This record gives sequence, structure tokens and C-alpha cells, in this order.
Amino acid sequence: MTDKRYIKLAHGGGGQLTSELIEQVILPALAGPQKPGRLADSALLSANGPIAFTTDSYVVQPLEFPGGDIGKLAICGTVNDLAVCGATPSAISMSLVLEEGLQLDLLKRVLSSAGAAAGTSGVEVVTGDTKVVERGGVDGMVINTSGIGRIADECDLGFDRICQGDAILLSGPLGEHALAVMSQRESLSFTADLASDCAPIHELTGALVSELGKDVRFMRDPTRGGLAALLVDIAEATGRDIEIRQEAIPTNKTARAAAEMLGLDLLVAANEGKLVAVVANSAAERATQILERFDICDRPAAIGHVGTVSQTPLVEMVTLIEGRTVVQRPYGEELPRIC
Amino acid sequence: MTDKRYIKLAHGGGGQLTSELIEQVILPALAGPQKPGRLADSALLSANGPIAFTTDSYVVQPLEFPGGDIGKLAICGTVNDLAVCGATPSAISMSLVLEEGLQLDLLKRVLSSAGAAAGTSGVEVVTGDTKVVERGGVDGMVINTSGIGRIADECDLGFDRICQGDAILLSGPLGEHALAVMSQRESLSFTADLASDCAPIHELTGALVSELGKDVRFMRDPTRGGLAALLVDIAEATGRDIEIRQEAIPTNKTARAAAEMLGLDLLVAANEGKLVAVVANSAAERATQILERFDICDRPAAIGHVGTVSQTPLVEMVTLIEGRTVVQRPYGEELPRIC
Repeated sequence: MTDKRYIKLAHGGGGQLTSELIEQVILPALAGPQKPGRLADSALLSANGPIAFTTDSYVVQPLEFPGGDIGKLAICGTVNDLAVCGATPSAISMSLVLEEGLQLDLLKRVLSSAGAAAGTSGVEVVTGDTKVVERGGVDGMVINTSGIGRIADECDLGFDRICQGDAILLSGPLGEHALAVMSQRESLSFTADLASDCAPIHELTGALVSELGKDVRFMRDPTRGGLAALLVDIAEATGRDIEIRQEAIPTNKTARAAAEMLGLDLLVAANEGKLVAVVANSAAERATQILERFDICDRPAAIGHVGTVSQTPLVEMVTLIEGRTVVQRPYGEELPRIC
Repeated sequence: MTDKRYIKLAHGGGGQLTSELIEQVILPALAGPQKPGRLADSALLSANGPIAFTTDSYVVQPLEFPGGDIGKLAICGTVNDLAVCGATPSAISMSLVLEEGLQLDLLKRVLSSAGAAAGTSGVEVVTGDTKVVERGGVDGMVINTSGIGRIADECDLGFDRICQGDAILLSGPLGEHALAVMSQRESLSFTADLASDCAPIHELTGALVSELGKDVRFMRDPTRGGLAALLVDIAEATGRDIEIRQEAIPTNKTARAAAEMLGLDLLVAANEGKLVAVVANSAAERATQILERFDICDRPAAIGHVGTVSQTPLVEMVTLIEGRTVVQRPYGEELPRIC
């Protein structure tokens, strides 16, 4: 009959083969608590108080890259979107769109990697969905993860809490995710030691909020559009100028070399395991010390400050030679399918 | 420059064009409560007590079909997955994967249709995500919706509540969604009056639960795999035989004719606005009367009963000529991309 090493259209038909795929491949990898055969249309959870709810679809190519794969990325991305809102991630949904002919072994690796990332992040994959499309309908697979998290009582985050003089913290060097994926895609040879920073950052955000309370004003992870888009968002939302210092931004030499070779700007390159936090200036040193405790933080630093209200709020960077340059949100982006 | 009538890769880059697409096209259509420029990584909600959480990705082809489109389908499908768990749908996420070159007008129609379906269903689209892939990366678009709903106190549903003698109710004729989509795809001409049944069924489930309480044992909507897969799931999960009567199943003549022409079985064809409810036999007549109040219910009927516990639980159908046939879960399915 047909080769069992590959995904077939019939795996998505809602019949016997779909049940087998779910029970034999998907559930064991994700190690969810629900028993095969008893899967309902929704997962039942209990919630009390404020919750955060988020979603992201992942279309990264290649599906596996140094430091991660689409499964790990899909868990970390959604965990991080919850974490930066001050939420403790609790439940995640995973929806797969698979291409006919996809290697079953590749699917197993990706799901196992997703299951491991969920374990590290302390979340359960509680509900899911699987569709199969014909050859050419997608490139291997698309994964959507949505997530729910509980928001801590002591947490009060938002653009409206950002004040003049607040410090802007960055947890580590920029662009490792985008450049690892691009290096893989372009087969660059000198980037052997460059891996995606793909990681859950919920422990960082949790520690900042629990130890600094309302001195933490705002958090976000610089994914698509990079640090530049994030800072322009803050400037526009608060109506305030922002100044950052280039010398304060931690750098990964290989990522910088790869960016130069590919003609990319690290300020707009996507990250998947970095945190930008705006904190009261008086708490900046303590915040940096908190971040330094975590292995995934590499030379965390205060990289700039929030300025005064302005008619035309700008993000300016003081360069290494003490010049000034305006940081702009990228118009589009030359890097499709990074996440 | 480039033609503004089509989606470009840069619309997904997280930069200026992404912001414009979200603010000018996506948010106005979905009419969410959050203001452009203030979109956080997660939506903040409040929840007290048990909630249901579900997800589905939609890959239907063609994107527009008689009676609906991928946008309406994505909202109704997730609303219905919540509804059959006894939940009142409250918040939905929508994640778009768009193909470079997609007509902006088509995207606007689909989003407007999704917004209208959300309005009808009483849910808000509270969070979302947009990715763009190069030409050929997906067929036009893939939509994921995930949803959260509050579960009513009086609700107690599950396979384990199904008892011997319980009645199995069906809210209307089978296969209208699958056959409307297939007729469009195969350009059948005699099916002009056939439209997808795509609709939210939360009012049906809400009325049953609030008026019949614990006499409602189990609910599900017969989507992929159709009525057949749903009944086999019940038989397997409860270990009980099930008997349905063919004469009791309401029929849409055009759908039946199209199914015969295409060699399909209506019992395994997907529906997107039908409800199957298992209720105490003593409540079956009242349940049918409740369903009859709703416009989307066409000749709702008790179509069978739950039988005794069996070593090899079977679903049997008494045919129109009083024969007996075993109803089986389809192995795969000959109908890809129906939802």
C-alpha cells in the first residue's frame, strides 16, 4: 500500500487515520493530560481573575534551524507573548496544517521539540487540531499556537504607565534568531557557532514583576520588526522621544558579521528569546541584576531612556562615534518566514 | 511602484506596512475594541469559573463558496466547538497566513464576513496575528481561530453521562456544507440552490442546556468525518451499541443528488451548522420542540437511541427497507480541504 513514512491526505479526513495520527504521534509527543478517544471539541479549564489570551501562526523556513525548529518556536513565541503581558502561561493550543508527503519522522521531531519546550515553560498543550493539504498547499507545515495565562495581582503594565526618565532594558544581543535562520537558508559557512536564541522568557518576566512590582512599566519581546519597531511603537504610543546608546547594546559578533554580509540591520532583526523591559530608572540597576541571574540573559543592560513628550516623538540612537541617528520602523522587511 | 490591490511579502514583516494592514483593513472589518497603535501581545480578559478553550485552522478551497467563505467558517467553527461543550463563546483570536499576491478585496470580503459572523455569535475578536508567505506558500490564505467561552453552572456534559435509552437528536439535514463546497469545486450546475449550512449553533446549545439542564448528556457538531465518525466516537467512548433509523434523518434533496453524483455518503460528509445532542429519552420531545424554534434547524428529529454495553460496540442503521447496516468511521476521506 502507501508508504507509512509520510503524511497522507487521509490523515486529515477526520476518520480512522486521523485518530491514529493523534493517538500514536501527536499526543505522545505533547504528553497532554487528556486520554485518546475522549478528546472533546474544547479543553476545559478553570480561571479566576484576569487572564491574557494570545495567538500566533508560524511559517518559518527551514522548519529546522540551528537552536530550534518550528515546534519549539511555536511554543516559545506564544509563551513569550503571554509572559510580556505579565501573565504566567498556563494552557496552549496547537493547530497543525500539514503538507501531504511530509516525513512522519520530521513531524515527530518537531512535536517532540514542542513538547519539551512546553515542559520547560510549565505549560500544557490542552487542545489542538490537525489538517492535511495536498502537495504544494503549504511548505511542509504551518503551526498555530494560542495561549492563556493568569495575570499576577501585583502586575500593572502598559504604554500608559511609561514615564519620563524610565530606563529601557535589553536582556541580550540582537538578531540571533533571524541570522541563524538566514544563515541556514543561505548556507553561510562561517556561522557554525550561531544558534537561534529561541527560548521561553517567562522566568525573566516573572522575576521582574514579582521583585520590582509596579516599577516595571512595560515589557515586550522584540520579534518581527526587531528592537526598532518595538521602540517606535513605544514612542508613538506614549508621544515621547526615546534615546538609546549603541555602545550599550550587547552584541553577538557572529550575528553582526552575518548581518553585515547579508546587508541586514540588527536593530530590525527578529529575536525569539529576548526581553525589552521599561522600568523606573531607580530600579534599573536592580532589574539588570535580576536578569543577570538567568542563563539566557547575556550581558543584559540598560540601553536607553524615555524622554519628554514631543509633537513628533522620535527614537534616536547615539552611535559609537557619538553621532545621532533616527531609528525607524522598517517599512516592510527583507526577511520573510523568519517566524 | 507595486500594485496596491494585492498583498505583498512586506505586509507581514512587522514594519510600517504591517501596521497599515492591521489598522486599515483588519481592525475595521473585525471591529474589535482595541485601538490601533495600542495592540499588546495578548488580549486581557477576565474569567471566573470554568472556561472552555479550543482551536481550529481552516484551509477550505475555494475560499468563497455558496453560503459562506473561509472567514465566516473560521468564526462559526470555533464558536460551535465552544458551544457543544456547553460554553458561551466570549473571545476569539484570529491568525492569518496570507499568500503574496492575494487580492486585497478578497481579504476584505473574508474579514468582513468573519466580523459579521462574530457579531451574530456575540463574540469579539480580541487578538490576532498576520503572516505573509511568498507565492505558492499557501493557497490564498489559511485562517486559525482559537476561542474561549464561559461554561454555564447547570451544564454537565460528557461521554460518561450518556445512558442506555438516551435519544440522539440531529438538528437538520446532513452534508450541505461539504456538498456546497464540492459542487463549487466541481462546477456542478444543478446545485444552484445548495448552500453551506455554515452558521453559529450557540443559541441551540444554550437553549437546550438552560431549559433541559442535566437531561442534556452530550453535544457535538458533525464536522469532518460527519455523523458517522461522531456516532462511532460515542459508541467507542461509552462502550455501548447505537441504533439510528435512516427514515428519521432529515434530507436535503439537492445535497443527496450531489452526493450520489459524486459518489459520496451523506453520513460521512462534513456539516458546519448542525448539532447532534444526546438527551434523556424523556426529554427528547421537548428538546426537538426547542430546536424547532430556530431558523437554522430544518426538521430536527430524534434519529436513534443509545443501546446496551457491548464487547464490540457498534453503530447500526435501520435502512429505509428495514435492513440493518453497520455505520463505520471513514478510514481517510475523499474530501480534502472542506474546512
